[in-house]
Order: sequence, then C-alpha cells, then structure tokens
Amino acid sequence: MPKAILIVCDGLGDLPHPAFRGRTPLQSARKPNIDRLSSEGINGLLHTVPRGVIPGSDTAHLSLLGYDPMRYYRGRGPFEALGAGLKLREGDVAFRCNFATVVEKDGRLIVTDRRAGRIREQAKELGPALDGMEIQGIKVIFKPTVEHRAALVLRGPGLSCMVSDADPHEGENAPVRESKPLDASKEAAFTAGVVNEFVTKSFHALDGHPVNAARVKAGLPQANVALPRGAGIYRKPPLFGERFGITAACIAGGALYKGVARFMGIDVVDVPGATGGTDTDVMAKGEAAARIIGDYDYVLVHVKGTDNAGHDGDFPGKVGMIERIDEMVGLLLKRVPADTYIAVTGDHTTSCLKKRHSSEPVPFALRGPGVRVDGVKALDEFSCASGGLGHIDGLFVMPTILDLLDKAHVYGS
Amino acid sequence: MPKAILIVCDGLGDLPHPAFRGRTPLQSARKPNIDRLSSEGINGLLHTVPRGVIPGSDTAHLSLLGYDPMRYYRGRGPFEALGAGLKLREGDVAFRCNFATVVEKDGRLIVTDRRAGRIREQAKELGPALDGMEIQGIKVIFKPTVEHRAALVLRGPGLSCMVSDADPHEGENAPVRESKPLDASKEAAFTAGVVNEFVTKSFHALDGHPVNAARVKAGLPQANVALPRGAGIYRKPPLFGERFGITAACIAGGALYKGVARFMGIDVVDVPGATGGTDTDVMAKGEAAARIIGDYDYVLVHVKGTDNAGHDGDFPGKVGMIERIDEMVGLLLKRVPADTYIAVTGDHTTSCLKKRHSSEPVPFALRGPGVRVDGVKALDEFSCASGGLGHIDGLFVMPTILDLLDKAHVYGS
Repeated sequence: MPKAILIVCDGLGDLPHPAFRGRTPLQSARKPNIDRLSSEGINGLLHTVPRGVIPGSDTAHLSLLGYDPMRYYRGRGPFEALGAGLKLREGDVAFRCNFATVVEKDGRLIVTDRRAGRIREQAKELGPALDGMEIQGIKVIFKPTVEHRAALVLRGPGLSCMVSDADPHEGENAPVRESKPLDASKEAAFTAGVVNEFVTKSFHALDGHPVNAARVKAGLPQANVALPRGAGIYRKPPLFGERFGITAACIAGGALYKGVARFMGIDVVDVPGATGGTDTDVMAKGEAAARIIGDYDYVLVHVKGTDNAGHDGDFPGKVGMIERIDEMVGLLLKRVPADTYIAVTGDHTTSCLKKRHSSEPVPFALRGPGVRVDGVKALDEFSCASGGLGHIDGLFVMPTILDLLDKAHVYGS
Repeated sequence: MPKAILIVCDGLGDLPHPAFRGRTPLQSARKPNIDRLSSEGINGLLHTVPRGVIPGSDTAHLSLLGYDPMRYYRGRGPFEALGAGLKLREGDVAFRCNFATVVEKDGRLIVTDRRAGRIREQAKELGPALDGMEIQGIKVIFKPTVEHRAALVLRGPGLSCMVSDADPHEGENAPVRESKPLDASKEAAFTAGVVNEFVTKSFHALDGHPVNAARVKAGLPQANVALPRGAGIYRKPPLFGERFGITAACIAGGALYKGVARFMGIDVVDVPGATGGTDTDVMAKGEAAARIIGDYDYVLVHVKGTDNAGHDGDFPGKVGMIERIDEMVGLLLKRVPADTYIAVTGDHTTSCLKKRHSSEPVPFALRGPGVRVDGVKALDEFSCASGGLGHIDGLFVMPTILDLLDKAHVYGS
C-alpha cells in the first residue's frame, strides 16, 4: 500500500516584502527539492479555515487532519495540556500558563515581567507547589513545560471554558486581569471564580518559595505567579484511526502540535533535537519520518521555525529555515519509497511585515503516483495560484490523502 | 490606520454580446484607472450568493457587507422602508408599493397602468390619504418615495412576511392580485387579509381624490390604488460597528442600498446629485468618498447606472457608465492616502442581452499595501478568471477587508 507524508511548515505563507525586492521568503529561498515536488506534482493555494479568516495554528491543524474546527475546536488549552503529556477527562477545562513576576500594590498584583525573566529549568521545581491543589471542589493539575510555560487543568463538575484570560498579554506593569465569564451560564461564572482563586493561591504559594528566594539572591526576578490563558474544554473526539481507517504518526517539536495529534489519537514520535524553535534539528525530523513511514500509513512532519521567524519579522531567518526544510525534503526524496505521496504546505500565512498571522492562503504541493501534474514549477504564493488544485480548503486535504491511499469510501454508490 | 473603499457598480458583470464583437461592456470600455487597480492589485471572480444562483441586489449587498443572506434576509420590504427614511420596529412587515391606475370592472380592479403614468411629485400629496390608517388592529405607515413608488409598513401583533404580492407585475389590463398566504400559519393568512383590505381601502381613498381629479382634468391617468409587493419582516440584526469593530459609511442614490446600510447601522451619507439612475453625478460621489474617508474606516460607494443600462439592454449606455465610474476611480487614486485599500466590483451580472440578472460571477479587484499582486492587467469577466484570488464568495470580502485594516481576530490561536 502506498504511504503519505505531509510536511507542514508553520506560518509558511507570506506577503511581498518591499525591503526584499517585493518578494516573499518562499520566492527568495533556494529550494530545489521543494520546487521539484511542485514541478512533479499538483499545486494550489490552501485556506485552512473559512476563506478570508485568519487561522490560528490549532484550528488550522485540526482542519488539515480532517477535524472540522467548527465542530471540534473548543479552545487551545486542551491541546497544550495533551502536548505537555497530561491525560484529560471529559469536561476538564485546560489552560496555557505563564510563570510571571508580580508585585503587590494597593491590594492588586502588577505584572513586572510576563515571563519571569524567562525562567528555565527552575520552573519545574515550582510545579509541585501548585499541582494537586483543590479550589471550591475542583482539582488543580499543573505541569511546567518549556521555559516559563506550563499547562493547567481544572477537573471537577460544573466547569466551562467560556472565561477570559488572567494573563494581561502586555509588556510591563499591567495588572493581572480578573478572569470573567464570557457567557451568562453559572458554569462560566463558577469557573472564572476558580481561575481567579487559582491565581491568588499561586502567588501565595510561589512568592518567597525557596526557588524564588534563591533567584532573588542571584538578582533574578521571582516566578511568583501563574497566569492562565486560552481556556478550552476537553470533549473526547472520535479517534483518527477509527474515522479514517489508517495509521498515522506526528513528528513535531512544539507542544501544541503534539497535543493536536494526541487529541485525535495520532501517535507522537519524539525526535531528539526537535525543539519547536528555529534551532530545531530539521534533518533529524526527516530521518525519523523516513524511518517510521515503514510503520505508518501517514506521517505528519511539523516544522515550527518558519512561523517564529515570521512573528519576529526576520525575513532572512525565514528564508534560511525554508532552505533547511528543503534539505529535509531532499533527504526524504532519496530515502522513501518512490510510491510515497509527499505534500508540502503551511498551516497559515505569517507575514514578516505584519509580524502576525494573516488570512491569505498558503501554497500547497502534492507529488506522487498518478496525480494530475500541472505546470507550476515552484512552491510560492504566486506560482501556486495557477496550480491544478486552484484554491482548496483545509478539510479537502484529508479525504484527498485517503483517496490516494486507496482508503476512501465512495459518497453514494 | 489604513482605510478601505469598496466601489460596487450594480450589475457590473455581463456576457459576451454578439452585436459588439462578442465582448462585454467591461471589455469594451476605456477604463485606464480601473485597469490600474487590477494591474497593481489582486483579482478574482466574485459570487455574492451561492455559486450558480442568481443574486438579487439586496441579498448580494448583505453578503458583501458580511451579513449572510441565509441568516439575515427576510424579504426586500424592510430595506426599501429603511431606505425611504422610515424607522422600523421588531416584527414590522414592510413592502414596496407602486401607485397604479385601475378601473373597476365586474367588482374587480383591473390595472390599466402599473405606474400611474409615472406620476412624480404629485404622489407625495397622495401619501397622507393612506398613512395612519388602521386595518384589523394593524397600523399602516405609508410613505411615497420616488416617482410612482412608495414604502408601506404594517405594524402590530401577529404579522408574517409569507404573503404574495398584490402587484400583478404585468403591463396592461391585468387584475390586481389577491395577496395569498405562502405558508399554513395563521399569521400569514391574517397578513394577506390585511394587505387585501389595504389595497381596497387605498382605492376608496385615492379614486377621485382631488389630486387625481386634477390629473383627470389634465388628461393624466389617476394614481388611484397602491399595490404592495416584496413583503419582508424586520428583525433587528447585530450592528456592523459592534460586529466588526470598524466605522463605515455608505454613499448611494438608490433607496434599497441606503436601506441595507441603515439596516446594519452603517451611516448613509447623502450626496447631492446621487440619483440612483444613469443620470447620477458619479464624480460627486467620488468627491464625497475622498472627503469622508478621513472620518470612517470603510466607505462603500454604490453606483446603480450600470445595472439600469443592463436591464434596458443598453450596451453603449453601460459602457458609458463604466467610463464615468473610471473617472471617479481616477479621482480617488489622486485624492485618497496611498495606504488606502480600494476594491472595485459589482453585486451581480446584469446581461445586456438577457436584460436581467444572471448567475455568472462578477470581476473583483483589490489594490493596496502588501496584497499579492497577480498578473491580471484589466478588470473584466475573462482577465479576472486567472487572478490570484480565484473564485471568491461574497462573505469572503468582509473578513478580508478587516484583516487588511488590522481589525480581524484570529480564529483559534
């Protein structure tokens, strides 16, 4: 049976940049292997969420993997928690958290550093001070992840994800926000109350904690509060393997992408050196994909660095990341069986100019036996506009892959 | 913050015309400024309602402004009433009306002139004879508008918009139609009864009215009946400003377009000389748009004449109208700040051959900072088919504009 590999370069799409001859990073990068996929395959422009709407990375990946976000997306928190390796139960409400530095002023907590001096390994030692608390009958599960980040799960009856963030999302000297209910339900009001109490209790547990006392001595800011954001409720979805009848694995550095895969029951294959940053070991990911494609029908390889460079406005960095991904594609072209379908695309556009996601579609190329090869010679935002696929939606990808793998069903008869 | 101007040329699209070298009006017009927008922008073909369906002007404009007609369209009447300056309340049922000429024959009213000799200013003097009536507990609000036209609002409990027209929509000597319920509800049956009684009462109030007596003396047909059509129920929608977080204004001559704008809470800016016909002062509209773009984030400029020419089968008239709109675009290009997004399109195709709306998509061009400029050099039905936007839907326009204005939200995170 043929296999398929989908390479998702996060934030791959871009806009013409006046400081770089009006070109995009994809137009500027030297990428003979990716362009070979375009030349030998069929191309198009991909809208992962409804056209004209700006995709998030979470909604975009749900869509790419055949899970309509309108149906399955209930906030980002659960993906982060699953990505951090936590197990979720039906009805759990999960959040991303930051360790931050606060000072108490007139009875309010003021954030002086939203990332607690980018605390790293020590954050892990602070976890136990918060994990296992109980608030108004709700169990608190708390796990530090990378640097100043953590995942928070609230477990118990009567919770809602319709609550606002405690994280002020601003630089310096903003007060911690009061979490507020976002609808009129009593569950939302109750959950907001639990979140606010969690924030206060985290301050009491962390301020002056031995780890923080040591940080103060070393002239570092305390990590003396945990600020939740991105509430989401976990509802167990139908599993990928049962829905589509194929086996799948995901190779990714970032917790979110691992979490999306685990959410669907897709195996997550950890690759040493896959960091989810621009320093990631792209070739190690390629090696891993070439290795495991023998064991799975479908492998998703996620590379995050292109998005990071876009958010930083780092055009040359994005070009460099694309060129490294191109080497990985070269490796795959050498190493995987000739009947393996390979698709390359992104989850959304992240403009180096705007330093944010934007709604423009992402180039998409698919190469493999029997596809209708078009005249496109390069993977970029302009060439792919005339591709044989035209404009496609995220939910188009999964049934197409299934059909190519001889695993799709006829609609009707 | 950047601003955006959307120019909607009503009925802009057309079909190849054998009498004009197989070309469309857009292909025949000299329009250097509009073509400059195409050349310097991104282009596509726009379907304002589901593809293959013939758009009405009302449904098309709802869609273009981000209001899904499947959800918000409940008949044309309310837009006409709002366009005429009437205020509506939740549950009001509104109609367009014609003053017509009827004769009584065997107890039936026979229409001898559906437009009452295209009565003009005198129609206003007839309004008070109908306005303020009460029928079966329902209040009648009646306001003459332009020429033989008027708006009718029925206000009171238990009304429905599921009733057929009293207007026979035919030329000469057709009987006034009995309004009939279009579903099995008691509200529809009741409303049809009120409409029929209104028609009868209008005849009793208008036939022999001093204004009509004077018309008879002058050899003119009486305007001795008011014939309702296009029932629609008013349900207050969420306001444009609250939904999208931007301020918007509409410049239009026709009542329908003003009504659609008022329905959403978009400011209507009246421009002297904007008639809603082919005699409209297009340059005055452009001057007004250039002036008010300083005060608003988004300005819609509507020009009706292209549609009128299409309905009349007047190919050269449509070409001339396009050339006048081109001058307005030239004025805008000179007068608005360079970072202003300008889009030009139509609400639907009105074929000079068929003299009616048809389902083919309309060319669309969008120019402004950072758009992915494609290779299209002219705005027409053929060139735009290869544009970078491909085929787009009406509801694509609003989120795209919001993203360009930095006012969109990420779906997900």
